[in-house]
Amino acid sequence: MTSAGAASERLLIRDLAQVATPAVGGAPARGAALRDVEVISDGFVLCENGRIAAVGAMRELPLLEEDRPGDDVEELDGRGLSAIPGLVDCHTHACFAGDRVGEFALRSAGATYEELHAAGGGILATVGATRAAAEPALAAAVARHREWMLQAGTTTFEAKSGYGLDRETELAQLRVIRDAGGVPTWLGAHAVPPEFAEEGSDTYLDFLLQDVLPEASRVAEAADVFVERGAFDVEQARRYLAACAEAGLALRLHGDQFTEMGAIQLAIELRAHSVDHLEATGKHGIEMLAASDVVGVLLPASALFLGRAMPPARELVDAGAAIALATDFNPGSAFCESLPLVCSLACTQLGLSPEEALVAVTVNPAHVLGRGAHKGRISPGFDADLVLLAAEDWRYLAYHLAGPVVDTVVVGGRIAWRSRA
Amino acid sequence: MTSAGAASERLLIRDLAQVATPAVGGAPARGAALRDVEVISDGFVLCENGRIAAVGAMRELPLLEEDRPGDDVEELDGRGLSAIPGLVDCHTHACFAGDRVGEFALRSAGATYEELHAAGGGILATVGATRAAAEPALAAAVARHREWMLQAGTTTFEAKSGYGLDRETELAQLRVIRDAGGVPTWLGAHAVPPEFAEEGSDTYLDFLLQDVLPEASRVAEAADVFVERGAFDVEQARRYLAACAEAGLALRLHGDQFTEMGAIQLAIELRAHSVDHLEATGKHGIEMLAASDVVGVLLPASALFLGRAMPPARELVDAGAAIALATDFNPGSAFCESLPLVCSLACTQLGLSPEEALVAVTVNPAHVLGRGAHKGRISPGFDADLVLLAAEDWRYLAYHLAGPVVDTVVVGGRIAWRSRA
Repeated sequence: MTSAGAASERLLIRDLAQVATPAVGGAPARGAALRDVEVISDGFVLCENGRIAAVGAMRELPLLEEDRPGDDVEELDGRGLSAIPGLVDCHTHACFAGDRVGEFALRSAGATYEELHAAGGGILATVGATRAAAEPALAAAVARHREWMLQAGTTTFEAKSGYGLDRETELAQLRVIRDAGGVPTWLGAHAVPPEFAEEGSDTYLDFLLQDVLPEASRVAEAADVFVERGAFDVEQARRYLAACAEAGLALRLHGDQFTEMGAIQLAIELRAHSVDHLEATGKHGIEMLAASDVVGVLLPASALFLGRAMPPARELVDAGAAIALATDFNPGSAFCESLPLVCSLACTQLGLSPEEALVAVTVNPAHVLGRGAHKGRISPGFDADLVLLAAEDWRYLAYHLAGPVVDTVVVGGRIAWRSRA
Repeated sequence: MTSAGAASERLLIRDLAQVATPAVGGAPARGAALRDVEVISDGFVLCENGRIAAVGAMRELPLLEEDRPGDDVEELDGRGLSAIPGLVDCHTHACFAGDRVGEFALRSAGATYEELHAAGGGILATVGATRAAAEPALAAAVARHREWMLQAGTTTFEAKSGYGLDRETELAQLRVIRDAGGVPTWLGAHAVPPEFAEEGSDTYLDFLLQDVLPEASRVAEAADVFVERGAFDVEQARRYLAACAEAGLALRLHGDQFTEMGAIQLAIELRAHSVDHLEATGKHGIEMLAASDVVGVLLPASALFLGRAMPPARELVDAGAAIALATDFNPGSAFCESLPLVCSLACTQLGLSPEEALVAVTVNPAHVLGRGAHKGRISPGFDADLVLLAAEDWRYLAYHLAGPVVDTVVVGGRIAWRSRA
């Protein structure tokens, strides 16, 4: 075919065993709507100029081609494969230097997270390594992590600062994340750095809001805070987040990871996009969250990595809450960038179905990141971000535990990664 | 270099950040010896004619090269990588047709293993699919599964029959496993097939021992039996295994997966190589096993997949038992061929250290398979089966949860798989 008008870039993926996509629309799916997945057998997806132009059954393709003659179209053979939307990881700490493999080994021998933190390990160990790294070294680390994510099917990722805790490094983290194509979240309120140990956390927050926020708010899209014993309490989180909202940032919270401290109430009060972790959330918190518009972001790989109890996912969904699933990728408590593993954990540890898991790693996290209108579904007009799974049944995404389930990743209508040469 | 004598095939892997190998010798490591891992920094491994010829620190290499001039040597750049022995998976059911992804989805919605089994799902579903497959189709399935295992660093795998439960299919399974380079185990006593439902399990065992064992014992290396409610009891297992031992087969048992029925005692009585699963093993069983020469094979990916309690690994090791870790790869209860994931689970769910996990996926399972004298260690004279990990610290094997941790796999001194072109 030749083009009559302006050249356009087209990719036709044909003969797919299945095309599976969340059917939900303009808001995060909640409760029963989390199971609303459309599956087309023997299907195709047509991408055009970076967007989905059409999706349907192969038998409908001739009609479509009659309707749309024109440009050359690149064809991709989808036989034996199934297509799902590109995965969206809405909670990572992917910008860091160093690792914490030594801490991992100590924990396997019985040390607790809090003990390791108290012993100078934990977050502050990564803060030291990240401050010591030059910006190009951080950029190289994020590029490496992004490549790992891409291999695992993640086409959109959020990443937080929070391993700088000083002006220079926090801003460098945000720039590096943005420049790598990530969605940058400012997590200045992750921990109190050593140089503020004496003056205390309130003085540290003063510094953050006066000296870092003005510039951070120009790079980041959202702000996040770690509400936990030893980090920040609800009053401090309110002050920090209110100032961040004032500066135009969307709001997120780390809450109920180890202790229920009121993070859910605060998230609702401040109309946050999400409250994340929730391993410790009880019945009252579940009911409050379910009655709100705040998305609960669950991080089962982190619970597994730390050997702790899983978040109450089934109870949240049954109560009518909107949930998303993310990796929490970070060097200390979840050295895991794999959303397929998270989906396996969702189905084996959280009592979620493959359908619920799919919605929770695509359209719902896209909403958390303010991108629900154009990411997370295979639907005309949406960004052409796709994962082709190496199986005829898309549920292998969760079924093939830690297996080589990603065959091909398409980003913006172009092949970004293939498992085979 | 040129050869003075007969041509030999040499591969030198140099500048490895670390070479890590179990230090244990002629018997499975037990108790504290499971932590006995030697780590050489800045090391090399020299392979010659399929065996390890030398291993050491780079500074020792010039001396070695003076001593051994001769053949051309292929060099592999190990910078940024660490070497461990090729992984040994001593418990898989890798020879099957079909899948059980529908059952997986049902289980995620709350159905139990026993309920699915009673509803005609479970093992017998795979028996139907496997009986219906022609031998070349089974061979293709095993080849695909073997490729997955290789990508995950498994260089030696065991696989069981047990999805035929008739003469023809059981023998076909064993041949296919052997011809794919696997270690075949005859698991005729996996379940009672439908055609024996009326006559009962004793009559089925008569059939197995009279009609299948004579030929099965010529192909298989070991026999295995599923000791469990709804499968076979201890008396039946004793009769089956005693006949198999008589026919020259090594002995294995599935025991204590859901119910303690005396499998450990029987394993000890019959001098079995291993007793596998042990999720339900209590204090008395732990003590008995620890006092015996039988290896306890733990399958945490299966416990995770089924959402059940983990086996008492820490208690077994502390009591002085010899343990191995395996995947249990099968379509129903552990669709997972990844020993790196099993190592991550060992460190996060079983309370084992990275060192204990390494020994339990290398030299100890090699002993279970009767190959402890030449597989599972990086030591002169051992088979040159190696995994080069994509990290400077070998403990990333367990630390990088579901990550792309395998860079290169060497089997018999030759590169069998690389993650990069």
